[in-house]
Amino acid sequence: MKILLLGAGKVGLSLLEMLPEVRYSRGGSGIQVSAIADSGGYLHTQGMKPLEIAASKRSGKLHSLHGWKEGGRLLDVIAESDADVLVDCMTTNFRDAKPSLDCVLAAFRKGMDVVTANKGPLALHAPLVLGEARRAGSSIMFSATVGGGTPFIDFGMLCRRDSSIASLRGILNGTTNFVLTRMSEGLPADSAITEAKAAGIAETDPTNDIRGLDSSAKIVILANTLAGREYTLPDVDMTGIEAVTPEMFREAESSGRSLKLISTYIPGEEVLRVSPELVSSSDHLNVGGTYNALTYTLEDGNEFTLIGTGAGAVETARAVARDIASLLDAREGKRDNQARTS
Amino acid sequence: MKILLLGAGKVGLSLLEMLPEVRYSRGGSGIQVSAIADSGGYLHTQGMKPLEIAASKRSGKLHSLHGWKEGGRLLDVIAESDADVLVDCMTTNFRDAKPSLDCVLAAFRKGMDVVTANKGPLALHAPLVLGEARRAGSSIMFSATVGGGTPFIDFGMLCRRDSSIASLRGILNGTTNFVLTRMSEGLPADSAITEAKAAGIAETDPTNDIRGLDSSAKIVILANTLAGREYTLPDVDMTGIEAVTPEMFREAESSGRSLKLISTYIPGEEVLRVSPELVSSSDHLNVGGTYNALTYTLEDGNEFTLIGTGAGAVETARAVARDIASLLDAREGKRDNQARTS
Repeated sequence: MKILLLGAGKVGLSLLEMLPEVRYSRGGSGIQVSAIADSGGYLHTQGMKPLEIAASKRSGKLHSLHGWKEGGRLLDVIAESDADVLVDCMTTNFRDAKPSLDCVLAAFRKGMDVVTANKGPLALHAPLVLGEARRAGSSIMFSATVGGGTPFIDFGMLCRRDSSIASLRGILNGTTNFVLTRMSEGLPADSAITEAKAAGIAETDPTNDIRGLDSSAKIVILANTLAGREYTLPDVDMTGIEAVTPEMFREAESSGRSLKLISTYIPGEEVLRVSPELVSSSDHLNVGGTYNALTYTLEDGNEFTLIGTGAGAVETARAVARDIASLLDAREGKRDNQARTS
Repeated sequence: MKILLLGAGKVGLSLLEMLPEVRYSRGGSGIQVSAIADSGGYLHTQGMKPLEIAASKRSGKLHSLHGWKEGGRLLDVIAESDADVLVDCMTTNFRDAKPSLDCVLAAFRKGMDVVTANKGPLALHAPLVLGEARRAGSSIMFSATVGGGTPFIDFGMLCRRDSSIASLRGILNGTTNFVLTRMSEGLPADSAITEAKAAGIAETDPTNDIRGLDSSAKIVILANTLAGREYTLPDVDMTGIEAVTPEMFREAESSGRSLKLISTYIPGEEVLRVSPELVSSSDHLNVGGTYNALTYTLEDGNEFTLIGTGAGAVETARAVARDIASLLDAREGKRDNQARTS
């Protein structure tokens, strides 16, 4: 199976370095990177191994590789490519989802499947993206967009076998959870954000996290995937943590509770919300630091909470690799071995 | 697909009542109950619907149904049966796993698959049971033995796609967690146990829970399933909650911690242990009441905690139904739809 990789930042690089180790049913030789592109240009790899490409990138020589087309456009490399799968590891753009949106749609038109770590197209244009995928008979997989290393989507699919979702409620952004945790310990907001950046938790510009956009995109993607809807970002009633004050933490503490940025989806009431909320100390969502947590309440009365570390580049790349492996397995006609005896 | 149901207690009855509603790929008409047996005898149902059988049981008339063979032996009904799957909903026996063990082995010899809610055969005789299943080419599925409604096994299998298990650590018994929670609130042990029985949380004889046997069986089954081992109950270093004293709770509280019955498996150190332990207030396993919780630490560095309600009869039956549906799907050659576009 041949992949065309868009994006050679931290996630793309981590992916290249883990591809040879990816576990899937067919063993380790089924995935080739036939082309790689970033905002500067692209390269048809002519059989270069993922580790060789990664080494070139690490040593700053990706753009000087033989055959690199500096200034080449993303849509051109897609048009020229013989890849089976477009893998999008570019940075999310919450304004208009470009250039990812155009790339994903072009890939569908060529009959390619898509694996993406990019929240933009799915959060802003779910009806268009999912509709075009259906029309083309293509798959789009996006485990990496929510939870990174923590399989919130896959676990939700597992829940859905038995029952519909009655509500989702959770902490979906590690950066804001870290900032709120440090603020609850007495740190001012700007110091907490500076600390998060220094620790490599927050991005250089964490505005999308702080304003609640990242959490909103994730609850939209979860709702669309687990409840079969086609919401977009404007459907979310969104409040970030910009307006959180020390006074609110004193109030929380005096009532034995914690202040958390909570994302909520209630299908029956069409509620889609991101907002700072007080949670009790015994609430399973009362997790600190960079942890993410999501409580799934099912129509059959069951209630599960899944807690995991928020995403870093490696965790995100691992989720992308997992989706690639699933696609390969599906293509090779392999089934998951459901017998527990092996 | 025809099933032979052993056990018409709370779990078996719940299963009969939910079979028509079970979700699986092929729709609702693929499962017939061809025979039902309990300790009193058995019946080849001759096409009776699951709901009719359940109604007979509820009204106390199961044993007076036309064709019921009072005093008939379990091994005889298995020998006579044309069922594809043996479904074992009988009470777990931690002494020698009888009569379930003999029934399961007999089913394998007939080429039947097995779905079981019974921990005995797997906890006491894993090498024999798993070996015979392999030899016969049969599947044995046992989601219901651990976590009931909470899919601890399935989530573990999902983790295992990416990485091996570095450790498992959790609360696997709702009754003891409820008792410890109430004791931490000042109740004496015997009052807490009486309360658990009155609330329908504890069984009439909760000895297997209190002594740690139930938790031990579950950590054995998890270790065997998720790490491919063949441990048995005597491999577990087991301490129950019999010896827990009010003094220990005072100690825990003074250090801001909670006393929990923790089950641990560390593959690399061959540690398999059940014991009361102090957990910090920020530990994700610090859940109260009847909740179960399990922390999965993976070799790749990821760490996930899954929290869910402990098992009741309905939750256990639902897990059995889910396994039956998976078997049916596997038999019908259906694959899970991995594309996220549908």
